[in-house]
Order: sequence, then structure tokens, then C-alpha cells
Amino acid sequence: MDLRNGFDIKRYIRTIPDYPKPGVMFRDITTLLSNLHGFRAAVDELAWPFLKGEIDYVAGIEARGFILGGAVAHNLGRGFIPIRKKGKLPSRVIGQDYALEYGVDTIEMHADAISKGDRVLLVDDLIATGGTAGAAIDLIRKSGGEVVSAAFVIDLPELGGAAKLKAKGVKVHTLVSFEGH
Amino acid sequence: MDLRNGFDIKRYIRTIPDYPKPGVMFRDITTLLSNLHGFRAAVDELAWPFLKGEIDYVAGIEARGFILGGAVAHNLGRGFIPIRKKGKLPSRVIGQDYALEYGVDTIEMHADAISKGDRVLLVDDLIATGGTAGAAIDLIRKSGGEVVSAAFVIDLPELGGAAKLKAKGVKVHTLVSFEGH
Repeated sequence: MDLRNGFDIKRYIRTIPDYPKPGVMFRDITTLLSNLHGFRAAVDELAWPFLKGEIDYVAGIEARGFILGGAVAHNLGRGFIPIRKKGKLPSRVIGQDYALEYGVDTIEMHADAISKGDRVLLVDDLIATGGTAGAAIDLIRKSGGEVVSAAFVIDLPELGGAAKLKAKGVKVHTLVSFEGH
Repeated sequence: MDLRNGFDIKRYIRTIPDYPKPGVMFRDITTLLSNLHGFRAAVDELAWPFLKGEIDYVAGIEARGFILGGAVAHNLGRGFIPIRKKGKLPSRVIGQDYALEYGVDTIEMHADAISKGDRVLLVDDLIATGGTAGAAIDLIRKSGGEVVSAAFVIDLPELGGAAKLKAKGVKVHTLVSFEGH
């Protein structure tokens, strides 16, 4: 699963122990993104199941999902829709709350970004508990859009996010997985 | 200047009056990004002067610069380096302050992202006063990198940012310009 087209994506992901807090192994994709072969492999692998044109838009989640989602959208020849943190989009928005470890956060999308029946590919760098991605799926569906799939470079299966999205009826496409969290 | 390859990029940029405060005409590129022709035209036009391979990395400024910069990097077959707001990058960083209308802000880049002599294309959505872009150029130069050019979809020439970057010895590549601010 971690070796595609002979390119080992996982090898280019740097692990930073105890970030952002003790006990967490942070998977840092900046070392993957800055490597020209790594970035190309990641974007192409995220995009390939959708090359046949069954999607209308790529939606990316701020902020790392913008880097990958923008490149995937360009690769697929589709438009890009940003899903942002609260208060960042200039026109009329729809919002969706989601639970954090302590508290609640909100993501927003322009209310006119998606029309009924639009087929959307959701992209982010990592799926952990699936809180943000789940909220993004709810946002797209609120607008009448269909979430064709959610694609991530990294899966942390022990945190259950991919399973949570599948339980919402969304296909999940991931490139590499890490044990732990 | 605003019509390239027969595609009118400017037409797809939405203007939102009095955002984020009265008197400001906010140029909203989300309507350009979500249009498949608009997004492709913008990315291809940002990238074309650099197709001959004279750059090593594309650096994008958080957050809208991530969408465009990621796509430009993929288009050029180069790695992508994120320049982020303070406290967002997980490994060792270098920072650069820049002046806001009231106060000071800081952007950061991973200290090991760029090596001496690396040739970097800086990408963001818009050049206004040039505060953030100027700080990003300083960051890249602190790492020993060469800023080959700074590329933006939108220029607001009355705010003087492009002139400021040129005075720093950086070539500036913009696609469309708007009067006022």
C-alpha cells in the first residue's frame, strides 16, 4: 500500500516526536511536498482514481489540503473550492461545527460554491479522527453536492477517521498509513 | 494584459465591496479557482515563464498562495515549500516580521527547506502593499535561496507592492490588475 509506481511516498514523510504535545508522533508532509518526485507522486496518486472525469470539483480543507487539493484540481482539469476556517471567506457562507478534543470548531464554504448534483472530491493531507473531514462532507451535502470520494495522503487507522467517513457513505482513498497517532 | 490565450481571467474574479471593512473593494478569487477554465488559465499563466526549468522550488504563502502555488509546483514538476503564519510549522523554523497597518505580523518557513543557491519562485494570489511578499523574499534569502521571481494573479498597483518587490531586485509577474484597493 505504501509503494506506488516504485516511489516510496512514506519515506519522504518526516516524523516529529512529541509535536504538538508529548506523546504525539506528528507526520510532517512538508518534506514530501518539497521533494519534486514526492510531490508529483502524491498528487498523481491522489488523483488517478478520478482521471476518468466523474468529478466536477475538488474541495480542499485549509491549509495543507489547499496545497494538495489545488494541485489535484489542476491535474484533473477541474475547479477548486476552498473549505476554510471560520471568518476567512469574503462572500456568503454556510458553516459546519465539529467537535475538538476540548471544544468545538467551525469550517465554512461559500454558499454558492456548489450546486445541486455537483460531484465533489474532497482532499486533505491526513485523516485522523475524521472530525474536520466529516464536517466538510456535511457542508458539501448541505449545498446539494455529492461527495464522490475523500482522498488523503496519510491515514491513521487507529484513530478511526476513515471508518467514520465510510460509515457516512463516502469512499475513502488514502496513500500511506501509520500506526499510532 | 488581462486577456491571455483568449481567456479573460479578470472576468472570473468577483469584487466584494466594503470587505473586510468599509471602502475596500475585495477581489475574491474563489470564483476564478472554482471555474475549471479559470483555474487552469491562472495556474498555466503563472507558470509559463518558468517552464524552461530555471527554478528549483515553488514557495507559496498561506493560505490562498497554497492553492495556486501547489498547482504551479505540480505544473512545473517542482517541489513546494509552504511559508506559513507563525506557529504552524512543526519543525525548526526561521521567521520574518513585517508591518501591518496597525502592528506587526510574522511568517515562518522551515529552516531546512531551502539550501544555498536554490532558485525559488514565490507565488501568492495578490500583491497589495507587498508586506507579506517582501517578508517571504527576506526569508528565502536568509536561507541562501535566490528569488527568481514573484508571481501573483492580481496586482493592485496603486498600493505599490510590485514596485517595492522590484526595488528589492525581484522580478514580478502578475496576470491582471485592478485600480483602487
